[in-house]
Amino acid sequence: MILLKNIKAIPMIEENLIYENVNILIEGNRIVKISKDKIDAKDAYKIDGTCKLVIPGLINLHTHLGMSFFKNIADDLNLMDWLEKEIWPREAKLTPEDIELATKYSIMEAIKSGTSTLVDMYNPSSLIARSMEEMGVRGLVSYGVIDNEKPIDEKIEEIEEAFLEFKDSDLVTVNPGPHAVYTVSRESFIKLRDLALKLNTPLHIHLSETLSEVQNTIKEFSKTPVEYLDDMGIFNAKTIAAHCVHLEDKDFEILAKRNVSVAHNPCSNLKLASGIADVQKMLDMGINVGLGTDSSSSNNNLDMFEEMKFASLLAKVKSNSPTSLKAYKVLEMATVNGARAIGMENELGKIKEGFLADLAIIDLSGVNLNPLNNLISCLVYSANSSNVDSLIVNGKILLEGGKLKILGQDTLMNLANKRKEAYK
Amino acid sequence: MILLKNIKAIPMIEENLIYENVNILIEGNRIVKISKDKIDAKDAYKIDGTCKLVIPGLINLHTHLGMSFFKNIADDLNLMDWLEKEIWPREAKLTPEDIELATKYSIMEAIKSGTSTLVDMYNPSSLIARSMEEMGVRGLVSYGVIDNEKPIDEKIEEIEEAFLEFKDSDLVTVNPGPHAVYTVSRESFIKLRDLALKLNTPLHIHLSETLSEVQNTIKEFSKTPVEYLDDMGIFNAKTIAAHCVHLEDKDFEILAKRNVSVAHNPCSNLKLASGIADVQKMLDMGINVGLGTDSSSSNNNLDMFEEMKFASLLAKVKSNSPTSLKAYKVLEMATVNGARAIGMENELGKIKEGFLADLAIIDLSGVNLNPLNNLISCLVYSANSSNVDSLIVNGKILLEGGKLKILGQDTLMNLANKRKEAYK
Repeated sequence: MILLKNIKAIPMIEENLIYENVNILIEGNRIVKISKDKIDAKDAYKIDGTCKLVIPGLINLHTHLGMSFFKNIADDLNLMDWLEKEIWPREAKLTPEDIELATKYSIMEAIKSGTSTLVDMYNPSSLIARSMEEMGVRGLVSYGVIDNEKPIDEKIEEIEEAFLEFKDSDLVTVNPGPHAVYTVSRESFIKLRDLALKLNTPLHIHLSETLSEVQNTIKEFSKTPVEYLDDMGIFNAKTIAAHCVHLEDKDFEILAKRNVSVAHNPCSNLKLASGIADVQKMLDMGINVGLGTDSSSSNNNLDMFEEMKFASLLAKVKSNSPTSLKAYKVLEMATVNGARAIGMENELGKIKEGFLADLAIIDLSGVNLNPLNNLISCLVYSANSSNVDSLIVNGKILLEGGKLKILGQDTLMNLANKRKEAYK
Repeated sequence: MILLKNIKAIPMIEENLIYENVNILIEGNRIVKISKDKIDAKDAYKIDGTCKLVIPGLINLHTHLGMSFFKNIADDLNLMDWLEKEIWPREAKLTPEDIELATKYSIMEAIKSGTSTLVDMYNPSSLIARSMEEMGVRGLVSYGVIDNEKPIDEKIEEIEEAFLEFKDSDLVTVNPGPHAVYTVSRESFIKLRDLALKLNTPLHIHLSETLSEVQNTIKEFSKTPVEYLDDMGIFNAKTIAAHCVHLEDKDFEILAKRNVSVAHNPCSNLKLASGIADVQKMLDMGINVGLGTDSSSSNNNLDMFEEMKFASLLAKVKSNSPTSLKAYKVLEMATVNGARAIGMENELGKIKEGFLADLAIIDLSGVNLNPLNNLISCLVYSANSSNVDSLIVNGKILLEGGKLKILGQDTLMNLANKRKEAYK
């Protein structure tokens, strides 16, 4: 049992609602009681909430954890130069041990920034799922599929095998991740959709990220990428579509009608000059939009607070109105909407009795946060990952007072710095 | 004397140059020696550079320090609602004591984020200049002028008086700050220009911030704001023009020809939905562009690292190329170009023997910064203010190991939180 005592909270159950002073009791992996009155729980591990604020653990809806060795290794390049000359040759050399190490490094970075759930796309997925379990974070691990010499049926077997390996996990699920319309054939897409339906997991794809993707698809199929996928019934499976920067009006309608969730990645979209997604329009049309950092080599960090600020500020300039994507809405993207995207909206993303105990605690004494006025604005516009004090995932404390409880931060950092040298 | 031992450095004297391991000796307020070899300086205060990186102290080229009580007090509003209903009524009530406290709070925030020089526009300027001196930062303190019942000649007297008060200061200079073309008459503008020329200080103005400012000026004077000011010879005085979001081709040419320095404020421009300034085009045309945070109520922090990331990423999407505004160029904006804007390019903004000892030291052990690859990318894309370890200004250590040496952080924070309640 864990008892958070006298803490401020943003429960995300009602717009702009803030609990000024509550007690929150966690039993097992659930929030069991929230009360303004004293909660008796003698045996509980107590966390003093003075000058602290608790929010739902943040949900990073699109990332590639295995890429942390490539952080700051090659920047300010055109997309194809970056991929073909810098990233792909290095990825080809990555050993499974190094993918595990790079993934664990990224998970550590995510934990320190208040992120409790990660939606990843990297391989091998069972190795990544195991890393998440070992480090105690929640995740959806998408087996990335790009058509190549390995037959699609073999990949499907592997996905199913990894799915079954983690079927009973409290924390992680493996699912299919067809990379994009320009790397995955129609046949493979349909097989992966059927697999997602069979396993009852989401599909995780990249969609309409760049203008050239859209133009090429129209050229080849006389359809936008969204139409192309819709026409082959891909969205019959619950879909998380990363990016969606270049959408036509009919695309917005399809995404709304087919309940596709969008993972918005503002930093990555700017850094690669892909464009600015029209998030306010998506939300206005009822599309569920969550937030992702993309990989630490296209961002270059995994700071969801920074991502929230970028998302909100960009939406304002995109829609030409400072009232667009208000702070609370972007906080919803990073919590409630992320939970909905992975099908866990009834137990994740809010601070509510019965919900999973995934909680991030913010230390409100940061100079950047003060003088303290509106706490929601403060989180979105003033905060960064360094203001995160503690993180609880599935009822376990992973970070407390800024210190990792689960492993040696320095050991992991030294190891990652040593091993990354092999990929310079 | 201060000796930085075995430290990495980005001296900003040559594109992408990094010293992997140097010793830097400071005597008085100057850098006197930089060497790869051991420097003998028995009496010097030693700073161990292991796992540290030193860069020139950052120069925040446009801010309003006195507004820190209003941080996160009113967000996601239209510009005029924000100003007229939220900001101006509160500013009208601000007492000099509270302006001083709010200013000192902002200075503390700036120091903790590695900022050594602040170009401010707020009143009363002598009070703000004194606050900067007391706290040990360098600054240009612009007396903000908006035409009102007080005659311009009286204001000019006050500016001159404040200028003389700080004439012999090592750290601060007071200068005229005509607010904008829509708040200051032609007559006042010309008098303030003449004053700037007489005192040999820059003018500091807001220019072409919003589309409506440009449209209204064209309607009234048949000229863009840039042309309007140029035609009355304002740019004969060295000018720092904040924003410059909406420029026509001829405006770029004028700013280049007349050596106007631009203070780019990406977060504020997005937050108020003003637009995205075309910084890459300005730089291509030879315009000197520095970087500012604007006030903490339109940002909502004073983190120059965050501002660098916004600047670089926005320039890429604005110019539709990921190769725009590379990391080194934006670091130049925050150092070298800032120094040029205030006329101190021969002694500030670089790590160079003979230059002023204004230095920010970054702790490279942050999880967000590692694995460590390119240090310049790391500063711009991965870092935030929490990675700042130490700050030296004018040869004095203001921050060391993340701790303020000059005053009690908690005392100032508590006081600011107490006093800001009067303006809720």
